Amino acid sequence: MSLTLAILVSGRGSNMTAILQAIAERRLDAEVKIVFSNNADAPALATARGYSIATASIPHKGLPREAHEEKLLEVLRPLEVDFVVLAGYMRILSPRFLREFKHEQGYFRVINIHPSLLPAFPGAHGYEEAFEYGVRVSGITVHLVDERVDHGPILAQMAFGRLSDDTLESFKSRGLKLEHKLFPEVLQNIARNGVQYFQRTTSVVAHDSPVASDLATASKGVTA
Amino acid sequence: MSLTLAILVSGRGSNMTAILQAIAERRLDAEVKIVFSNNADAPALATARGYSIATASIPHKGLPREAHEEKLLEVLRPLEVDFVVLAGYMRILSPRFLREFKHEQGYFRVINIHPSLLPAFPGAHGYEEAFEYGVRVSGITVHLVDERVDHGPILAQMAFGRLSDDTLESFKSRGLKLEHKLFPEVLQNIARNGVQYFQRTTSVVAHDSPVASDLATASKGVTA
Repeated sequence: MSLTLAILVSGRGSNMTAILQAIAERRLDAEVKIVFSNNADAPALATARGYSIATASIPHKGLPREAHEEKLLEVLRPLEVDFVVLAGYMRILSPRFLREFKHEQGYFRVINIHPSLLPAFPGAHGYEEAFEYGVRVSGITVHLVDERVDHGPILAQMAFGRLSDDTLESFKSRGLKLEHKLFPEVLQNIARNGVQYFQRTTSVVAHDSPVASDLATASKGVTA
Repeated sequence: MSLTLAILVSGRGSNMTAILQAIAERRLDAEVKIVFSNNADAPALATARGYSIATASIPHKGLPREAHEEKLLEVLRPLEVDFVVLAGYMRILSPRFLREFKHEQGYFRVINIHPSLLPAFPGAHGYEEAFEYGVRVSGITVHLVDERVDHGPILAQMAFGRLSDDTLESFKSRGLKLEHKLFPEVLQNIARNGVQYFQRTTSVVAHDSPVASDLATASKGVTA
């Protein structure tokens, strides 16, 4: 099946671009119905228009969260997308908003990418905090969104090492490359197989993320 | 330089065994002066004696922490070991104990291995909690001990993937194999290069962990 998506962004939208590019190159069987930003000046909006994608923006300043989300829902509801994709959307979504996208199996059809191996380093500064903590291995997480920030069921993760000569910039740039690879792959997995949601404690997805499997193999290679 | 070590264990001591085996096979230039347990029945003690290592035990039951640690210190002090190695030692060490092993550069000469990618899943059930959380990537951490549980500066980490058909047992067993590989390697790095301790926020070790580097390469390979 082909997935229909709405992408929410606040800034540059490099993950949005990676998704649009994957669709253009037919690596991802999906259609982006709209790119929305809480920031009318987000560079992501111009990028999206370059891909002939509809864009919308509603500044959140001066609006209570509920009112802002209601306006966003007025845009999203008629589009009836399969998934709302957060690609650097710097607003927390209320449980009320999430319930609009509740799947019959109980999860919310809202997907986020986070720049750390959750549950480590939740919040708005994943790369910075991991780097400052002094981790030797960090990574990225694609997960279903739930009512708690950066907490929902994990769909895929990918690790990368911190090198001794890393600066925050080189560390972050290595992570971003993985984000741009993993996010479209996870969406394509969902387009192909759907989200197989049982319960958190057993298995969130029935299929392995190809990237997570590669990593597992790599680690096993190292052990052997 | 050859490292002198005291190893503290509470149970089976599989990491202790990995260290003794690495020494026997000359992959680790170290000498274990004593293996100590808070549990006189710990199978690790018999294993250590099989390697002709001195063993000691002091049951902690009925003793206040301070008194138990003081008795342990009476055993350790005369040995003047370079490092105290925690290999599944299930007692929390007090700041007072740690200060006895303070290096002039400020860190404590006490090393621990933990079955998760810290700071995720600290505490006594790393594998179980990571598995139940539903992570797709977990790992192991070797770190210097500080006053906070599972918090000290990280020396090395290694990641492994969770597979969709993993049971807790298969997940844990994959992690344990990495533990047994990484711990002796980190100790050998220290024997060769010492701990290059600057500050947590810049670089904890000056040299890359070979394993962490391998993993970084593997991840880069996946990205390419």
